[in-house]
Amino acid sequence: MKENTENANNGRRKFMVGAGSLAAGLALARFMDMASSAQASETTAKKWPWPYVKLDPATTAELAYKEWYRVFCGAAVINSIFSQLAEKVGEPYKSFPADAFIFLEGGMAGFGTVCGSIAGANVASNLIVGPRIAGTQDGALMGADIFDWYAETAMPVFTPKSPKITTKIVQTTSNSPLCHISVGRWMKAADKPLGSAERKDRCARVAASVAYHLVEKLNLWHEGKFAATGDISCAKEHGITGQRNCTDCHGDNVPTPPRAKK
Amino acid sequence: MKENTENANNGRRKFMVGAGSLAAGLALARFMDMASSAQASETTAKKWPWPYVKLDPATTAELAYKEWYRVFCGAAVINSIFSQLAEKVGEPYKSFPADAFIFLEGGMAGFGTVCGSIAGANVASNLIVGPRIAGTQDGALMGADIFDWYAETAMPVFTPKSPKITTKIVQTTSNSPLCHISVGRWMKAADKPLGSAERKDRCARVAASVAYHLVEKLNLWHEGKFAATGDISCAKEHGITGQRNCTDCHGDNVPTPPRAKK
Repeated sequence: MKENTENANNGRRKFMVGAGSLAAGLALARFMDMASSAQASETTAKKWPWPYVKLDPATTAELAYKEWYRVFCGAAVINSIFSQLAEKVGEPYKSFPADAFIFLEGGMAGFGTVCGSIAGANVASNLIVGPRIAGTQDGALMGADIFDWYAETAMPVFTPKSPKITTKIVQTTSNSPLCHISVGRWMKAADKPLGSAERKDRCARVAASVAYHLVEKLNLWHEGKFAATGDISCAKEHGITGQRNCTDCHGDNVPTPPRAKK
Repeated sequence: MKENTENANNGRRKFMVGAGSLAAGLALARFMDMASSAQASETTAKKWPWPYVKLDPATTAELAYKEWYRVFCGAAVINSIFSQLAEKVGEPYKSFPADAFIFLEGGMAGFGTVCGSIAGANVASNLIVGPRIAGTQDGALMGADIFDWYAETAMPVFTPKSPKITTKIVQTTSNSPLCHISVGRWMKAADKPLGSAERKDRCARVAASVAYHLVEKLNLWHEGKFAATGDISCAKEHGITGQRNCTDCHGDNVPTPPRAKK
Protein backbone atom coordinates (compact mmCIF):
# COMPACT_ATOMS: atom_id res chain seq x y z
CA MET A 1 0.00 0.00 0.00
CA LYS A 2 2.73 2.46 1.04
CA GLU A 3 4.74 1.72 -2.09
CA ASN A 4 1.69 2.14 -4.35
CA THR A 5 0.88 5.51 -2.79
CA GLU A 6 4.47 6.69 -3.26
CA ASN A 7 4.44 5.60 -6.91
CA ALA A 8 1.15 7.40 -7.47
CA ASN A 9 2.54 10.57 -5.87
CA ASN A 10 5.63 10.47 -8.07
CA GLY A 11 3.46 10.09 -11.19
CA ARG A 12 1.27 12.95 -10.06
CA ARG A 13 4.21 15.31 -9.50
CA LYS A 14 5.67 14.53 -12.93
CA PHE A 15 2.38 15.21 -14.67
CA MET A 16 1.84 18.55 -12.95
CA VAL A 17 5.21 19.82 -14.12
CA GLY A 18 4.41 18.77 -17.70
CA ALA A 19 0.89 20.18 -17.92
CA GLY A 20 1.56 23.43 -16.11
CA SER A 21 -2.15 23.86 -15.43
CA LEU A 22 -3.69 24.07 -11.96
CA ALA A 23 -7.18 23.07 -13.17
CA ALA A 24 -5.90 20.08 -15.09
CA GLY A 25 -3.68 19.15 -12.14
CA LEU A 26 -6.59 19.19 -9.71
CA ALA A 27 -8.84 17.19 -12.03
CA LEU A 28 -6.11 14.70 -12.67
CA ALA A 29 -5.34 14.37 -8.97
CA ARG A 30 -8.97 13.35 -8.44
CA PHE A 31 -8.81 10.71 -11.14
CA MET A 32 -5.44 9.48 -9.89
CA ASP A 33 -7.08 8.92 -6.51
CA MET A 34 -9.84 6.94 -8.24
CA ALA A 35 -7.33 4.79 -10.10
CA SER A 36 -5.21 4.40 -7.00
CA SER A 37 -8.10 3.29 -4.79
CA ALA A 38 -9.34 0.88 -7.48
CA GLN A 39 -5.83 -0.57 -7.68
CA ALA A 40 -5.77 -0.84 -3.89
CA SER A 41 -9.06 -2.79 -3.90
CA GLU A 42 -7.49 -5.32 -6.27
CA THR A 43 -4.80 -6.16 -3.76
CA THR A 44 -6.90 -5.80 -0.57
CA ALA A 45 -8.42 -9.27 -1.01
CA LYS A 46 -5.02 -10.90 -0.50
CA LYS A 47 -4.16 -8.99 2.69
CA TRP A 48 -5.45 -10.15 6.05
CA PRO A 49 -7.39 -9.52 8.15
CA TRP A 50 -10.08 -8.07 5.89
CA PRO A 51 -11.66 -4.90 7.29
CA TYR A 52 -14.53 -5.79 9.61
CA VAL A 53 -17.19 -3.95 11.58
CA LYS A 54 -19.44 -5.56 14.19
CA LEU A 55 -22.65 -7.04 12.79
CA ASP A 56 -25.92 -7.92 14.45
CA PRO A 57 -26.22 -11.72 14.76
CA ALA A 58 -30.03 -11.80 14.46
CA THR A 59 -30.05 -9.55 11.37
CA THR A 60 -27.38 -11.76 9.82
CA ALA A 61 -29.36 -14.91 10.60
CA GLU A 62 -32.50 -13.47 8.99
CA LEU A 63 -30.47 -12.66 5.86
CA ALA A 64 -29.01 -16.20 5.77
CA TYR A 65 -32.48 -17.72 6.14
CA LYS A 66 -33.75 -15.67 3.20
CA GLU A 67 -30.66 -16.32 1.09
CA TRP A 68 -30.96 -20.10 1.58
CA TYR A 69 -34.03 -20.06 -0.67
CA ARG A 70 -31.93 -18.39 -3.38
CA VAL A 71 -28.42 -19.90 -3.17
CA PHE A 72 -28.68 -22.66 -0.52
CA CYS A 73 -26.64 -23.21 2.62
CA GLY A 74 -23.00 -22.36 1.92
CA ALA A 75 -23.49 -19.25 -0.19
CA ALA A 76 -26.30 -18.13 2.16
CA VAL A 77 -23.95 -18.06 5.16
CA ILE A 78 -21.23 -16.21 3.21
CA ASN A 79 -23.67 -13.74 1.63
CA SER A 80 -25.46 -12.98 4.91
CA ILE A 81 -22.18 -11.56 6.23
CA PHE A 82 -20.52 -10.30 3.05
CA SER A 83 -23.59 -8.41 1.78
CA GLN A 84 -23.65 -6.36 4.99
CA LEU A 85 -19.90 -5.75 4.93
CA ALA A 86 -20.06 -4.79 1.24
CA GLU A 87 -22.54 -2.10 2.32
CA LYS A 88 -20.71 -0.97 5.47
CA VAL A 89 -17.08 -1.48 4.43
CA GLY A 90 -17.00 -1.95 0.62
CA GLU A 91 -14.05 -3.89 -0.77
CA PRO A 92 -12.97 -6.67 -0.86
CA TYR A 93 -16.48 -7.87 0.01
CA LYS A 94 -18.17 -6.09 -2.92
CA SER A 95 -16.12 -7.98 -5.49
CA PHE A 96 -16.13 -11.41 -3.84
CA PRO A 97 -18.08 -13.92 -5.99
CA ALA A 98 -19.99 -15.49 -3.08
CA ASP A 99 -22.82 -16.79 -5.29
CA ALA A 100 -20.34 -19.26 -6.83
CA PHE A 101 -20.46 -21.12 -3.51
CA ILE A 102 -23.94 -22.40 -4.25
CA PHE A 103 -22.03 -25.63 -5.09
CA LEU A 104 -21.65 -26.26 -1.35
CA GLU A 105 -25.31 -27.37 -1.39
CA GLY A 106 -26.15 -30.93 -0.44
CA GLY A 107 -22.77 -31.55 1.17
CA MET A 108 -20.94 -30.23 -1.92
CA ALA A 109 -22.42 -30.99 -5.33
CA GLY A 110 -25.00 -33.23 -3.63
CA PHE A 111 -22.44 -35.73 -2.30
CA GLY A 112 -23.45 -35.36 1.34
CA THR A 113 -19.91 -34.57 2.55
CA VAL A 114 -19.37 -31.47 4.73
CA CYS A 115 -22.53 -29.51 5.62
CA GLY A 116 -22.56 -26.46 3.34
CA SER A 117 -23.45 -24.08 6.17
CA ILE A 118 -20.30 -24.86 8.14
CA ALA A 119 -18.21 -24.99 4.94
CA GLY A 120 -19.51 -21.51 4.14
CA ALA A 121 -18.67 -20.40 7.68
CA ASN A 122 -15.10 -21.62 7.17
CA VAL A 123 -14.86 -19.73 3.87
CA ALA A 124 -16.01 -16.56 5.68
CA SER A 125 -13.86 -16.95 8.79
CA ASN A 126 -10.71 -17.71 6.80
CA LEU A 127 -11.33 -14.85 4.38
CA ILE A 128 -12.10 -12.27 7.08
CA VAL A 129 -9.76 -13.23 9.90
CA GLY A 130 -7.16 -14.69 7.56
CA PRO A 131 -5.77 -18.12 6.70
CA ARG A 132 -2.88 -19.86 8.47
CA ILE A 133 -0.52 -18.96 5.61
CA ALA A 134 -1.07 -15.27 6.49
CA GLY A 135 0.37 -15.83 9.94
CA THR A 136 -2.78 -16.18 12.06
CA GLN A 137 -4.39 -19.31 13.49
CA ASP A 138 -7.66 -17.59 14.49
CA GLY A 139 -9.49 -17.96 11.15
CA ALA A 140 -8.81 -21.71 11.04
CA LEU A 141 -9.56 -22.14 14.77
CA MET A 142 -12.83 -20.22 14.43
CA GLY A 143 -13.82 -22.49 11.54
CA ALA A 144 -12.96 -25.59 13.58
CA ASP A 145 -14.96 -24.22 16.54
CA ILE A 146 -17.97 -23.90 14.24
CA PHE A 147 -17.55 -27.56 13.24
CA ASP A 148 -17.49 -28.66 16.89
CA TRP A 149 -20.41 -26.49 17.94
CA TYR A 150 -22.48 -27.62 14.94
CA ALA A 151 -21.97 -31.31 15.67
CA GLU A 152 -22.83 -30.94 19.36
CA THR A 153 -25.87 -28.66 19.10
CA ALA A 154 -29.54 -29.55 18.67
CA MET A 155 -30.24 -27.91 15.31
CA PRO A 156 -31.72 -25.66 14.12
CA VAL A 157 -31.23 -23.13 16.94
CA PHE A 158 -32.53 -20.02 15.18
CA THR A 159 -36.20 -19.38 14.41
CA PRO A 160 -36.79 -16.66 11.83
CA LYS A 161 -39.36 -13.90 12.45
CA SER A 162 -41.52 -14.95 9.48
CA PRO A 163 -40.73 -18.59 8.74
CA LYS A 164 -42.05 -20.27 5.60
CA ILE A 165 -43.03 -23.28 7.71
CA THR A 166 -45.00 -22.34 10.81
CA THR A 167 -45.32 -25.81 12.33
CA LYS A 168 -42.64 -26.90 14.80
CA ILE A 169 -39.35 -27.96 13.22
CA VAL A 170 -37.82 -30.90 15.14
CA GLN A 171 -34.30 -30.34 16.49
CA THR A 172 -31.62 -33.02 16.16
CA THR A 173 -27.96 -33.31 17.10
CA SER A 174 -25.83 -34.54 14.19
CA ASN A 175 -22.71 -35.62 16.11
CA SER A 176 -21.02 -35.12 12.75
CA PRO A 177 -20.11 -32.30 10.36
CA LEU A 178 -21.40 -34.35 7.41
CA CYS A 179 -24.52 -33.26 5.50
CA HIS A 180 -25.54 -36.90 4.94
CA ILE A 181 -25.55 -37.70 8.67
CA SER A 182 -26.90 -34.33 9.83
CA VAL A 183 -29.76 -34.31 7.34
CA GLY A 184 -30.32 -38.07 7.66
CA ARG A 185 -30.72 -37.92 11.45
CA TRP A 186 -33.11 -35.01 11.13
CA MET A 187 -35.16 -36.76 8.41
CA LYS A 188 -35.48 -39.86 10.59
CA ALA A 189 -36.57 -37.87 13.66
CA ALA A 190 -38.97 -35.66 11.70
CA ASP A 191 -40.14 -38.47 9.39
CA LYS A 192 -39.93 -36.06 6.47
CA PRO A 193 -38.37 -36.72 3.06
CA LEU A 194 -35.45 -34.78 1.59
CA GLY A 195 -37.71 -32.92 -0.83
CA SER A 196 -40.21 -31.80 1.83
CA ALA A 197 -40.82 -28.14 2.64
CA GLU A 198 -39.99 -28.96 6.28
CA ARG A 199 -36.53 -30.36 5.44
CA LYS A 200 -35.78 -27.34 3.30
CA ASP A 201 -36.85 -24.97 6.04
CA ARG A 202 -34.81 -26.94 8.57
CA CYS A 203 -31.70 -26.46 6.42
CA ALA A 204 -32.49 -22.76 5.88
CA ARG A 205 -32.73 -22.38 9.67
CA VAL A 206 -29.46 -24.31 10.12
CA ALA A 207 -27.77 -21.83 7.76
CA ALA A 208 -29.30 -18.99 9.82
CA SER A 209 -28.14 -20.61 13.08
CA VAL A 210 -24.58 -21.00 11.77
CA ALA A 211 -24.50 -17.40 10.48
CA TYR A 212 -25.71 -16.16 13.89
CA HIS A 213 -23.05 -18.11 15.76
CA LEU A 214 -20.28 -17.13 13.34
CA VAL A 215 -21.07 -13.41 13.70
CA GLU A 216 -20.92 -13.77 17.49
CA LYS A 217 -17.42 -15.23 17.09
CA LEU A 218 -16.36 -12.58 14.55
CA ASN A 219 -17.60 -9.79 16.84
CA LEU A 220 -15.58 -11.24 19.72
CA TRP A 221 -12.52 -11.49 17.49
CA HIS A 222 -13.03 -7.88 16.35
CA GLU A 223 -12.94 -6.85 20.01
CA GLY A 224 -9.80 -8.90 20.61
CA LYS A 225 -11.77 -11.33 22.79
CA PHE A 226 -11.88 -14.44 20.58
CA ALA A 227 -10.46 -17.52 22.27
CA ALA A 228 -10.72 -20.82 20.40
CA THR A 229 -12.64 -23.45 22.36
CA GLY A 230 -12.17 -26.34 19.94
CA ASP A 231 -9.45 -28.84 19.41
CA ILE A 232 -8.08 -29.27 15.91
CA SER A 233 -5.52 -31.91 16.94
CA CYS A 234 -7.71 -34.92 16.05
CA ALA A 235 -5.01 -35.95 13.60
CA LYS A 236 -2.37 -35.73 16.33
CA GLU A 237 -4.52 -37.51 18.89
CA HIS A 238 -5.86 -40.34 16.74
CA GLY A 239 -3.32 -40.42 13.92
CA ILE A 240 -5.84 -39.62 11.18
CA THR A 241 -8.09 -36.75 10.10
CA GLY A 242 -11.51 -37.50 11.51
CA GLN A 243 -15.04 -36.39 12.15
CA ARG A 244 -15.14 -37.20 15.88
CA ASN A 245 -17.85 -39.81 15.43
CA CYS A 246 -15.71 -42.93 14.92
CA THR A 247 -18.28 -45.43 16.15
CA ASP A 248 -21.00 -44.15 13.80
CA CYS A 249 -19.30 -46.00 10.96
CA HIS A 250 -16.85 -48.31 12.72
CA GLY A 251 -19.10 -49.58 15.52
CA ASP A 252 -17.02 -51.19 18.27
CA ASN A 253 -14.23 -52.03 15.86
CA VAL A 254 -12.44 -48.72 15.31
CA PRO A 255 -9.27 -49.43 13.29
CA THR A 256 -5.90 -48.23 14.59
CA PRO A 257 -4.12 -46.24 11.89
CA PRO A 258 -0.40 -46.88 11.30
CA ARG A 259 1.73 -44.89 13.74
CA ALA A 260 5.25 -43.55 13.40
CA LYS A 261 7.90 -45.96 14.72
CA LYS A 262 9.14 -44.76 18.10
CA MET B 1 -20.09 -2.55 -18.92
CA LYS B 2 -21.56 -0.61 -21.88
CA GLU B 3 -23.17 1.84 -19.51
CA ASN B 4 -19.91 2.37 -17.61
CA THR B 5 -18.01 3.07 -20.81
CA GLU B 6 -20.61 5.58 -21.93
CA ASN B 7 -20.51 7.34 -18.55
CA ALA B 8 -16.73 7.47 -18.72
CA ASN B 9 -16.90 8.95 -22.23
CA ASN B 10 -19.37 11.62 -21.10
CA GLY B 11 -17.12 12.54 -18.19
CA ARG B 12 -14.13 12.69 -20.48
CA ARG B 13 -15.85 15.06 -22.95
CA LYS B 14 -16.96 17.41 -20.16
CA PHE B 15 -13.46 17.61 -18.74
CA MET B 16 -11.84 18.35 -22.10
CA VAL B 17 -14.14 21.35 -22.68
CA GLY B 18 -13.32 22.70 -19.19
CA ALA B 19 -9.56 22.27 -19.34
CA GLY B 20 -9.11 23.36 -22.94
CA SER B 21 -5.77 21.60 -23.09
CA LEU B 22 -4.90 18.78 -25.50
CA ALA B 23 -1.98 17.53 -23.38
CA ALA B 24 -4.06 17.45 -20.21
CA GLY B 25 -6.89 15.81 -22.14
CA LEU B 26 -4.68 13.04 -23.44
CA ALA B 27 -3.08 12.40 -20.06
CA LEU B 28 -6.47 12.36 -18.39
CA ALA B 29 -7.87 9.98 -21.02
CA ARG B 30 -5.12 7.54 -20.11
CA PHE B 31 -5.92 7.72 -16.42
CA MET B 32 -9.65 7.47 -17.13
CA ASP B 33 -8.93 4.22 -18.97
CA MET B 34 -6.96 2.99 -15.94
CA ALA B 35 -9.81 3.86 -13.59
CA SER B 36 -12.37 2.35 -15.96
CA SER B 37 -10.52 -0.94 -16.38
CA ALA B 38 -9.93 -1.18 -12.62
CA GLN B 39 -13.66 -0.62 -12.09
CA ALA B 40 -14.39 -3.32 -14.67
CA SER B 41 -12.17 -5.81 -12.84
CA GLU B 42 -14.18 -5.22 -9.68
CA THR B 43 -17.35 -6.45 -11.36
CA THR B 44 -15.79 -9.16 -13.57
CA ALA B 45 -15.62 -11.65 -10.70
CA LYS B 46 -19.42 -11.82 -10.48
CA LYS B 47 -19.99 -12.43 -14.18
CA TRP B 48 -19.71 -15.91 -15.62
CA PRO B 49 -18.01 -17.63 -17.29
CA TRP B 50 -14.68 -16.14 -16.23
CA PRO B 51 -12.28 -15.62 -19.14
CA TYR B 52 -10.31 -18.81 -19.81
CA VAL B 53 -7.49 -19.90 -22.07
CA LYS B 54 -6.38 -23.51 -22.55
CA LEU B 55 -3.77 -24.68 -20.05
CA ASP B 56 -1.30 -27.54 -20.18
CA PRO B 57 -2.44 -30.32 -17.80
CA ALA B 58 1.09 -31.53 -16.95
CA THR B 59 2.36 -28.00 -16.24
CA THR B 60 -0.65 -27.41 -14.02
CA ALA B 61 -0.09 -30.69 -12.17
CA GLU B 62 3.57 -29.81 -11.51
CA LEU B 63 2.44 -26.44 -10.09
CA ALA B 64 -0.16 -28.14 -7.87
CA TYR B 65 2.43 -30.62 -6.59
CA LYS B 66 4.77 -27.77 -5.66
CA GLU B 67 2.00 -25.65 -4.15
CA TRP B 68 0.85 -28.52 -1.92
CA TYR B 69 4.02 -28.08 0.13
CA ARG B 70 3.10 -24.41 0.66
CA VAL B 71 -0.71 -24.27 1.02
CA PHE B 72 -1.86 -27.93 1.00
CA CYS B 73 -4.41 -29.67 -1.22
CA GLY B 74 -7.36 -27.34 -1.83
CA ALA B 75 -5.47 -24.09 -2.32
CA ALA B 76 -2.82 -25.96 -4.35
CA VAL B 77 -5.42 -27.09 -6.91
CA ILE B 78 -6.96 -23.61 -7.15
CA ASN B 79 -3.59 -21.83 -7.32
CA SER B 80 -2.15 -24.20 -9.93
CA ILE B 81 -4.85 -23.00 -12.33
CA PHE B 82 -5.46 -19.43 -11.12
CA SER B 83 -1.76 -18.47 -11.03
CA GLN B 84 -1.44 -19.34 -14.73
CA LEU B 85 -4.66 -17.55 -15.66
CA ALA B 86 -3.63 -14.49 -13.62
CA GLU B 87 -0.54 -14.38 -15.83
CA LYS B 88 -2.27 -15.13 -19.16
CA VAL B 89 -5.66 -13.45 -18.59
CA GLY B 90 -5.32 -11.15 -15.55
CA GLU B 91 -8.54 -10.40 -13.67
CA PRO B 92 -10.52 -11.73 -11.90
CA TYR B 93 -7.85 -14.37 -11.19
CA LYS B 94 -5.22 -11.87 -10.03
CA SER B 95 -7.41 -10.59 -7.18
CA PHE B 96 -8.88 -13.92 -6.05
CA PRO B 97 -7.67 -14.79 -2.53
CA ALA B 98 -6.91 -18.45 -3.29
CA ASP B 99 -4.46 -18.82 -0.39
CA ALA B 100 -7.39 -18.47 2.02
CA PHE B 101 -8.45 -21.94 0.91
CA ILE B 102 -5.60 -23.52 2.81
CA PHE B 103 -8.38 -24.34 5.32
CA LEU B 104 -9.52 -27.15 2.98
CA GLU B 105 -6.54 -29.16 4.29
CA GLY B 106 -7.20 -32.41 6.14
CA GLY B 107 -10.77 -32.66 4.89
CA MET B 108 -11.53 -29.05 5.98
CA ALA B 109 -9.93 -27.78 9.18
CA GLY B 110 -8.62 -31.30 9.83
CA PHE B 111 -12.06 -32.89 10.17
CA GLY B 112 -11.55 -35.47 7.43
CA THR B 113 -14.70 -34.50 5.50
CA VAL B 114 -14.40 -33.79 1.77
CA CYS B 115 -10.91 -34.27 0.27
CA GLY B 116 -9.47 -30.77 -0.14
CA SER B 117 -8.20 -31.47 -3.65
CA ILE B 118 -11.67 -32.17 -5.01
CA ALA B 119 -13.17 -29.34 -2.93
CA GLY B 120 -10.59 -27.01 -4.50
CA ALA B 121 -11.49 -28.39 -7.93
CA ASN B 122 -15.14 -27.53 -7.27
CA VAL B 123 -14.19 -24.00 -6.19
CA ALA B 124 -12.25 -23.60 -9.46
CA SER B 125 -14.85 -25.19 -11.78
CA ASN B 126 -17.72 -23.19 -10.30
CA LEU B 127 -15.75 -19.93 -10.38
CA ILE B 128 -14.51 -20.38 -13.96
CA VAL B 129 -17.43 -22.06 -15.71
CA GLY B 130 -20.01 -20.48 -13.41
CA PRO B 131 -22.41 -21.59 -10.68
CA ARG B 132 -25.95 -22.87 -11.20
CA ILE B 133 -27.38 -19.50 -10.11
CA ALA B 134 -25.67 -17.93 -13.15
CA GLY B 135 -27.71 -20.11 -15.49
CA THR B 136 -25.25 -22.90 -16.31
CA GLN B 137 -25.08 -26.46 -14.98
CA ASP B 138 -21.62 -27.19 -16.39
CA GLY B 139 -19.57 -25.85 -13.46
CA ALA B 140 -21.53 -27.94 -10.95
CA LEU B 141 -21.55 -31.01 -13.23
CA MET B 142 -17.80 -30.72 -13.81
CA GLY B 143 -17.29 -30.59 -10.03
CA ALA B 144 -19.50 -33.65 -9.56
CA ASP B 145 -17.60 -35.50 -12.31
CA ILE B 146 -14.36 -34.83 -10.43
CA PHE B 147 -15.92 -36.36 -7.29
CA ASP B 148 -16.93 -39.52 -9.21
CA TRP B 149 -13.60 -39.87 -10.99
CA TYR B 150 -11.66 -39.32 -7.75
CA ALA B 151 -13.56 -42.01 -5.88
CA GLU B 152 -13.20 -44.58 -8.68
CA THR B 153 -9.53 -44.01 -9.57
CA ALA B 154 -6.40 -45.63 -8.10
CA MET B 155 -4.66 -42.55 -6.67
CA PRO B 156 -2.32 -40.84 -7.12
CA VAL B 157 -2.28 -40.94 -10.94
CA PHE B 158 0.30 -38.22 -11.56
CA THR B 159 4.03 -38.60 -10.90
CA PRO B 160 5.93 -35.32 -10.80
CA LYS B 161 9.20 -34.90 -12.70
CA SER B 162 11.24 -34.34 -9.54
CA PRO B 163 9.32 -35.92 -6.66
CA LYS B 164 10.40 -35.35 -3.07
CA ILE B 165 9.92 -39.07 -2.43
CA THR B 166 11.61 -41.26 -5.00
CA THR B 167 10.42 -44.65 -3.72
CA LYS B 168 7.19 -46.04 -5.16
CA ILE B 169 4.01 -44.47 -3.80
CA VAL B 170 1.25 -47.10 -3.40
CA GLN B 171 -1.99 -46.38 -5.29
CA THR B 172 -5.37 -46.92 -3.64
CA THR B 173 -8.99 -46.40 -4.66
CA SER B 174 -10.96 -44.46 -2.05
CA ASN B 175 -14.50 -45.34 -3.16
CA SER B 176 -15.39 -42.14 -1.33
CA PRO B 177 -14.87 -38.38 -1.64
CA LEU B 178 -13.96 -38.18 2.06
CA CYS B 179 -10.42 -37.32 3.19
CA HIS B 180 -10.70 -39.65 6.19
CA ILE B 181 -11.54 -42.69 4.03
CA SER B 182 -9.26 -41.79 1.11
CA VAL B 183 -6.24 -41.12 3.33
CA GLY B 184 -7.12 -43.96 5.73
CA ARG B 185 -7.27 -46.57 2.94
CA TRP B 186 -3.96 -45.35 1.55
CA MET B 187 -2.31 -45.37 5.01
CA LYS B 188 -3.46 -48.95 5.57
CA ALA B 189 -2.19 -50.14 2.17
CA ALA B 190 1.10 -48.25 2.46
CA ASP B 191 1.53 -48.94 6.19
CA LYS B 192 2.63 -45.35 6.65
CA PRO B 193 1.47 -42.90 9.33
CA LEU B 194 -0.30 -39.61 8.65
CA GLY B 195 2.80 -37.59 9.47
CA SER B 196 5.11 -39.58 7.17
CA ALA B 197 6.87 -37.97 4.21
CA GLU B 198 5.29 -40.65 2.00
CA ARG B 199 1.71 -39.76 3.05
CA LYS B 200 2.42 -36.08 2.45
CA ASP B 201 3.85 -36.80 -0.99
CA ARG B 202 0.88 -39.03 -1.77
CA CYS B 203 -1.48 -36.15 -1.02
CA ALA B 204 0.66 -33.69 -3.00
CA ARG B 205 0.45 -36.09 -5.96
CA VAL B 206 -3.31 -36.46 -5.47
CA ALA B 207 -3.64 -32.65 -5.69
CA ALA B 208 -1.52 -32.76 -8.85
CA SER B 209 -3.64 -35.60 -10.31
CA VAL B 210 -6.87 -33.68 -9.62
CA ALA B 211 -5.46 -30.45 -11.12
CA TYR B 212 -4.39 -32.39 -14.23
CA HIS B 213 -7.82 -33.95 -14.67
CA LEU B 214 -9.65 -30.68 -14.01
CA VAL B 215 -7.65 -28.82 -16.65
CA GLU B 216 -8.47 -31.56 -19.16
CA LYS B 217 -12.17 -30.97 -18.41
CA LEU B 218 -11.80 -27.16 -18.53
CA ASN B 219 -10.01 -27.35 -21.87
CA LEU B 220 -12.81 -29.50 -23.29
CA TRP B 221 -15.38 -27.05 -21.95
CA HIS B 222 -13.45 -24.15 -23.50
CA GLU B 223 -13.71 -25.92 -26.87
CA GLY B 224 -17.42 -26.52 -26.38
CA LYS B 225 -16.81 -30.26 -26.01
CA PHE B 226 -17.49 -30.81 -22.29
CA ALA B 227 -20.17 -33.43 -21.65
CA ALA B 228 -20.83 -34.37 -18.03
CA THR B 229 -20.32 -38.06 -17.38
CA GLY B 230 -21.42 -38.13 -13.76
CA ASP B 231 -24.73 -38.43 -12.07
CA ILE B 232 -25.66 -35.85 -9.45
CA SER B 233 -29.10 -37.34 -8.82
CA CYS B 234 -28.03 -39.44 -5.82
CA ALA B 235 -30.55 -37.47 -3.76
CA LYS B 236 -33.30 -38.24 -6.28
CA GLU B 237 -32.34 -41.89 -6.60
CA HIS B 238 -31.81 -42.73 -2.94
CA GLY B 239 -33.76 -39.97 -1.21
CA ILE B 240 -30.75 -38.51 0.60
CA THR B 241 -27.50 -36.74 -0.23
CA GLY B 242 -24.80 -39.42 -0.24
CA GLN B 243 -21.26 -40.41 -0.92
CA ARG B 244 -22.01 -43.49 -3.06
CA ASN B 245 -20.37 -45.83 -0.58
CA CYS B 246 -23.40 -46.72 1.57
CA THR B 247 -22.13 -50.09 2.77
CA ASP B 248 -18.82 -48.65 4.00
CA CYS B 249 -20.62 -47.32 7.06
CA HIS B 250 -23.97 -49.11 6.97
CA GLY B 251 -22.75 -52.64 6.13
CA ASP B 252 -25.67 -54.76 4.93
CA ASN B 253 -28.18 -52.68 6.82
CA VAL B 254 -28.55 -49.51 4.74
CA PRO B 255 -31.44 -47.47 6.21
CA THR B 256 -34.28 -46.37 3.96
CA PRO B 257 -34.83 -42.62 4.31
CA PRO B 258 -38.39 -41.28 4.60
CA ARG B 259 -39.98 -40.88 1.17
CA ALA B 260 -42.70 -38.52 -0.01
CA LYS B 261 -46.18 -40.00 0.25
CA LYS B 262 -47.38 -41.08 -3.20
